Amino acid sequence: MDAASAWLPRSLGAVEASLREATAGHGAALERDASATLQAGGKRLRPLLVLLCGGARGGEGSVRAATAVELVHMATLVHDDVLDEAPLRRGRPTVAATSGTGAATATGDLLFSRAFALLAEAGDVEQVQLLSEASVGLAEGELAQRHDEFDTSIDVERYMERCRLKTAHLFECACRMGWIASSAADGQGLEELRGFGSSIGLAFQLLDDVLDVTGPVERTGKARGTDLLDGTVTLPLIVALRRDPELANVELRGLSEEEAEAVCDRIAATGALEEVRSQALELVAESKRSLAASGVDDEQRELLELVADGVVDRYG
Amino acid sequence: MDAASAWLPRSLGAVEASLREATAGHGAALERDASATLQAGGKRLRPLLVLLCGGARGGEGSVRAATAVELVHMATLVHDDVLDEAPLRRGRPTVAATSGTGAATATGDLLFSRAFALLAEAGDVEQVQLLSEASVGLAEGELAQRHDEFDTSIDVERYMERCRLKTAHLFECACRMGWIASSAADGQGLEELRGFGSSIGLAFQLLDDVLDVTGPVERTGKARGTDLLDGTVTLPLIVALRRDPELANVELRGLSEEEAEAVCDRIAATGALEEVRSQALELVAESKRSLAASGVDDEQRELLELVADGVVDRYG
Repeated sequence: MDAASAWLPRSLGAVEASLREATAGHGAALERDASATLQAGGKRLRPLLVLLCGGARGGEGSVRAATAVELVHMATLVHDDVLDEAPLRRGRPTVAATSGTGAATATGDLLFSRAFALLAEAGDVEQVQLLSEASVGLAEGELAQRHDEFDTSIDVERYMERCRLKTAHLFECACRMGWIASSAADGQGLEELRGFGSSIGLAFQLLDDVLDVTGPVERTGKARGTDLLDGTVTLPLIVALRRDPELANVELRGLSEEEAEAVCDRIAATGALEEVRSQALELVAESKRSLAASGVDDEQRELLELVADGVVDRYG
Repeated sequence: MDAASAWLPRSLGAVEASLREATAGHGAALERDASATLQAGGKRLRPLLVLLCGGARGGEGSVRAATAVELVHMATLVHDDVLDEAPLRRGRPTVAATSGTGAATATGDLLFSRAFALLAEAGDVEQVQLLSEASVGLAEGELAQRHDEFDTSIDVERYMERCRLKTAHLFECACRMGWIASSAADGQGLEELRGFGSSIGLAFQLLDDVLDVTGPVERTGKARGTDLLDGTVTLPLIVALRRDPELANVELRGLSEEEAEAVCDRIAATGALEEVRSQALELVAESKRSLAASGVDDEQRELLELVADGVVDRYG
């Protein structure tokens, strides 16, 4: 990991600078709104995947791809807050809450457009293709989730398909974009890195859905049971419904925050959370097997394994 | 115009098929919502500009570009309806009204993503660049308009800048994309066609803003004075304020629909509408001068002049 000590922090710094640049010069209101989103931006997990899959050879192409992926992610966060009418995101007020639905919709559109402009400017057409397809998936996932609202009859397969669209595709995309930026001309390892991204993306979503049930709010920045309140039926509830059929009698529409917390407690009491956590851990193990098969060099592999473990640790 | 009788209707038909394809296969809800937007789609002015600037040589590249431009336009319509909480668009219920803000935001995102995916799939990186930059402009324009809400002190220059961002850039972009699709290798005429698109885009917006004041609702599909109700200060009001300073005493916030109609009548009484119309006609004349200087062939020029006249006739 010594060699990475040179290029990785430098590349991460370049991504931050590039994110700031992409949101600058669009008027004061946007800079305020976008900065709020930038600052609340969290762990930069997707840019990290791009950079690590690109490796030392990724260079500027990697930085651009990492920035573009994060801009799309930020755009979806801003739009999700419009969809969910969420007051808080990671404990901070959302753009939708501070500036209204209109500004949030336009801010998301701008972040989104900038992502494609950035890649297109540099002629990275293959990257545009990957990212636009992942973006189609994100929107499809959002529509699927809305379609399934409050529907407790959805099965594991449908849930997993939504996770693939809403989360895993962009993780996959990040890995593929990094790999392409590194110009590994022999084509070796792309499918395996894609599998790696997909598995940790799914693990990430499963654990995120567990966290919505367990809280605490200080850690998640949002109320426990927010998914229940939004009508989003996730794996912990699906598993709990199988274990405690009487849960099906709970009417999810119109739950109060207190009632939602009580449903969270009932889900936890079934042991569903342990089952979901262990599925997530199996996905992380699977991701490491894909990684080992990808033929990336030892340094990349070690760092990517740390990222995979980080997904779990975040919830440990 | 005889030669065009062969390729133009065929290309327009191909654009319609391509638009349907781009919105198919994304679940029943989206197809219903997107079809509503597709059917309410109006005149396909932007695709027509792409195809005509591309000419007979534009071929499939022109059709792709025309489809992508219209998808972005449709995405902004769907998002605008979220922003404005508009119940009607061209006399039909909006996606936002029938399926909710959430579905409308996601539907817009999907249309948007599909536009870039379509161009990137074919390797049209220059087209992605033009369209993404125009999309940045659209979002900036929307943010600027929100920033200026209810501000009757904004001047003509600021208003025109907003029109460039919100409307003229995409018209310009359509012309440039068509020109690029035609692979006119010598580079002649691009700036002139860009000027043509910009001028008719501005004329279009000015006349649209006049129409908001004059109605009638049967023609526009929305109430008279909708801009006033939304707090959007447009050129008719800016000119009227100069001609009738007492208008400044009207408080725009919280107007009822009846009061908004009364303000519309006061704006019309100042003669402001004739002034704005004559500015729009001057822009159309300017667009024809740019067109003549572009060196496009006679058939293209005749048809593009018809489009320019059509922008005016729509409001005649």
